[in-house]
Amino acid sequence: MEVYSKAETLELRKKHIGPSCKVFFAKDPIKIVRAHGQYMFDENGEKYLDCINNVAHVGHSHPDVVEAAVKQMELLNTNSRFLHDNLVQYAKRLTATLPEKLSVCYFVNSGSEANDLALRLARQYSGHYDVITLDHAYHGHVTSLIDISPYKFNQLGKEAKKEFVHVAPSPDIYRGKYREDHEDPAGAYADEVRNIIEKAQKNGCKIAAFIAESMQSCGGQIIPPAGYFQKVAQFVHKAGGVFIADEVQVGFGRVGKNFWAFQLQGEDFVPDIVTMGKPIGNGHPMSCVVTTRDIAEAFGASGLEYFNTFGGNPVSCAIGLAVLDIIEQEDLQGNATCVGNYLIGLLKEQQIKHSLVGDIRGVGLFIGVDLVKDQLKRTPATAEAQHIIYKLKERKILLSADGPYRNVLKFKPPMCFSMEDAKFVVDQIDELLTELEEATQSRVKNSLPTNTQYKRKLPTDGSFQLESNNENISPVNGTICRHENGFSGESHTMACKRIRT
Amino acid sequence: MEVYSKAETLELRKKHIGPSCKVFFAKDPIKIVRAHGQYMFDENGEKYLDCINNVAHVGHSHPDVVEAAVKQMELLNTNSRFLHDNLVQYAKRLTATLPEKLSVCYFVNSGSEANDLALRLARQYSGHYDVITLDHAYHGHVTSLIDISPYKFNQLGKEAKKEFVHVAPSPDIYRGKYREDHEDPAGAYADEVRNIIEKAQKNGCKIAAFIAESMQSCGGQIIPPAGYFQKVAQFVHKAGGVFIADEVQVGFGRVGKNFWAFQLQGEDFVPDIVTMGKPIGNGHPMSCVVTTRDIAEAFGASGLEYFNTFGGNPVSCAIGLAVLDIIEQEDLQGNATCVGNYLIGLLKEQQIKHSLVGDIRGVGLFIGVDLVKDQLKRTPATAEAQHIIYKLKERKILLSADGPYRNVLKFKPPMCFSMEDAKFVVDQIDELLTELEEATQSRVKNSLPTNTQYKRKLPTDGSFQLESNNENISPVNGTICRHENGFSGESHTMACKRIRT
Repeated sequence: MEVYSKAETLELRKKHIGPSCKVFFAKDPIKIVRAHGQYMFDENGEKYLDCINNVAHVGHSHPDVVEAAVKQMELLNTNSRFLHDNLVQYAKRLTATLPEKLSVCYFVNSGSEANDLALRLARQYSGHYDVITLDHAYHGHVTSLIDISPYKFNQLGKEAKKEFVHVAPSPDIYRGKYREDHEDPAGAYADEVRNIIEKAQKNGCKIAAFIAESMQSCGGQIIPPAGYFQKVAQFVHKAGGVFIADEVQVGFGRVGKNFWAFQLQGEDFVPDIVTMGKPIGNGHPMSCVVTTRDIAEAFGASGLEYFNTFGGNPVSCAIGLAVLDIIEQEDLQGNATCVGNYLIGLLKEQQIKHSLVGDIRGVGLFIGVDLVKDQLKRTPATAEAQHIIYKLKERKILLSADGPYRNVLKFKPPMCFSMEDAKFVVDQIDELLTELEEATQSRVKNSLPTNTQYKRKLPTDGSFQLESNNENISPVNGTICRHENGFSGESHTMACKRIRT
Repeated sequence: MEVYSKAETLELRKKHIGPSCKVFFAKDPIKIVRAHGQYMFDENGEKYLDCINNVAHVGHSHPDVVEAAVKQMELLNTNSRFLHDNLVQYAKRLTATLPEKLSVCYFVNSGSEANDLALRLARQYSGHYDVITLDHAYHGHVTSLIDISPYKFNQLGKEAKKEFVHVAPSPDIYRGKYREDHEDPAGAYADEVRNIIEKAQKNGCKIAAFIAESMQSCGGQIIPPAGYFQKVAQFVHKAGGVFIADEVQVGFGRVGKNFWAFQLQGEDFVPDIVTMGKPIGNGHPMSCVVTTRDIAEAFGASGLEYFNTFGGNPVSCAIGLAVLDIIEQEDLQGNATCVGNYLIGLLKEQQIKHSLVGDIRGVGLFIGVDLVKDQLKRTPATAEAQHIIYKLKERKILLSADGPYRNVLKFKPPMCFSMEDAKFVVDQIDELLTELEEATQSRVKNSLPTNTQYKRKLPTDGSFQLESNNENISPVNGTICRHENGFSGESHTMACKRIRT
């Protein structure tokens, strides 16, 4: 099946692919030749458990997605200047998952195209230009989005922030300005945004938009406290701007209880623009911006046509429809809740056992494990996180570490992730943490005062206020959680061979 | 097969799709349900000849493209952070079509993403910011590209041009500043760019890039005089900037003789960055930026990673490889030359016969028919062009009119377009022009002085200096030109029913 050996592939990659395009595990990258469900296989047939691929949302190579694509590709793949059922059918289905006022779609090809268009919509509608973004945010790779992504532009030096960009503190109640012991972190973080708006206005700046991921992903798996978005939206609307919820990483049921992560904030919150991406087509390049009729009409009033060559083509829409069907038919939201709660529970056991585990935060299958050198000071354990990632890779588990300090283990697996997968990965993490603590002679104890341990106010759903036992691994709301890979009976390979990294 | 009636489709579209997204033939849009080769079929089975779809490059729904996609989708579709054969194999194949120094690829999802990245590369490499663009140019729909697209920003009023953007005259030798009777239009147009650079530098501006489509498409099917790009590149390089050739519309063999349209300028011309799009995946959302090692290294030196979630995934690359194979196996470049020359010949007969036809310009299967009210004044015949487009649609032919005055009939059909297709469409145009001239009582004569009629200096290849006879319809360079649809024996439906438009 292979055309080139791994060494040749690497050599050709060095020759012909831009050096800015990095591989995972640069010291010893992985060559993947096939994938299925939550498993990926390298050129030697070694099986990896995929804990990070939120694009392969309904599982790698899902047969229904392939079938939908083929069926439509054989018939027609053309642009949206012709009428086609798939486009409108998909728009109807997609908007049905959203609050009523979010009814107008623009189909594009990537999260970056979606966020860029969201900015264009906001600016045209508001007549303003400035943007408020969260610290550590990443919204995409095109010029306009690097500009509003501190995760990127901070790397370019102090001069890199443009004047029209205003950075609000990330609503991180573990490591941020207002923490879990604050009486109203949502209000306090929202007040920061209000202050930014007031200061900007004093300087003659006008706010077009506030943009935030509904949960920050690259920013370190941050779940904003419930009520924060409502308050921010009030201030932003008052300033004549709009609220853009970036669901590129976190949408399509990943949080379990809700289809969209912004809904964790409460039913009274509705963004003005929602952008979607990664999971929408299970890997097929497609994405979408959904907004209100008012904003869409204002955008249209400029007279400029919006044409996107590939956006909304019948193949992309057929795939989008198949993904929605699978999420429903396989109750992947139920699975996300159930397996996610179980995984969070197992990780909280690790938190008690290992001093390196500072914080466990998550909802559904979006979970962060914040590693610290010191539980009280919350000093990021960056090197330790990198060590664990590399060691897990040796054990055929794909996990990543992100956040401003690259110390947050980041779970965002395909939504068919099972209880056994969760148990397997946490067992491995347990072993690695034990080894690491023994090697560094750190005490295996929990130095965190017990009274603050579970005090975080997580949004709306009490179900993730898990105690560190296994009570919550049973079915939730009648959902049967996945106990093993639905595609095959293969068991995990316990590859414990150690390679120096 | 239909989920909704055409009326319901339209209704849902109005409800759920942004009003800025326009349909073809807004007064009576077409619903297309399948397509094959150069033919599209509506919900009633009516067959349309597609003269405009340069995305369906190797023909609509080409079975080899579908097969390549399915085969790879069943195995794996993931991001380029894992090593994969398809990525490097495709990069190797693609760069082999280009001059040697263009050796480093960045895979992205759309022409817009490609042009935006090209600007980022240019700015990082040069350390400069300003951009020179051609009048009437269109380079994409994201914020950074609307800024450098006069085709778009001119619609937004005089204030819309940003200070860092410098607009050079389009090298249009029919309607532009220097025409076919100028002794050195290439030099004269290039001098305009030099003057812009000098003026910009006097104002403290520094040029990062000159960007141009190798042939302007939306700008009115403009073929720059040979030698123009070389001279411009000299001036731009001297100013520390780079030359970006936008091949999104015109690349992949459309011009016949060459694989890339910039190669029409001569072998001594090599751009610094080439952007690709539309035809690259025959409709699959993918595109690419290719540049030099130096520029890629400078981009990498910023330290910023470039990651594109869908860009360069194994499915896109498999499709890209299939498209390259088909172009070669079916000798579509040969067909483009052969059928293109024949079509240009037939259109030149129309130029002699009809006073409305001002100019015929083209190379391969990229052809413009510039309609004029007056051959000497070259007054654009905008309404007439629109009339013809609508009338052709009634006759089941899809053609469009573009350019700053929307008076240029624009041919850019799938590359499997046949001699019979060419004859059919020109016969219909002939009838419509005759009707139009009779209705408006204009004389059916050629008011153009005969000595200037074929005087245009077209780039490099003498083969498109066609006389208006059929000599050139025979095979060119051993190529067997397509005489009919390779997929089926169906003949053209001569639907002459007239609908008021």
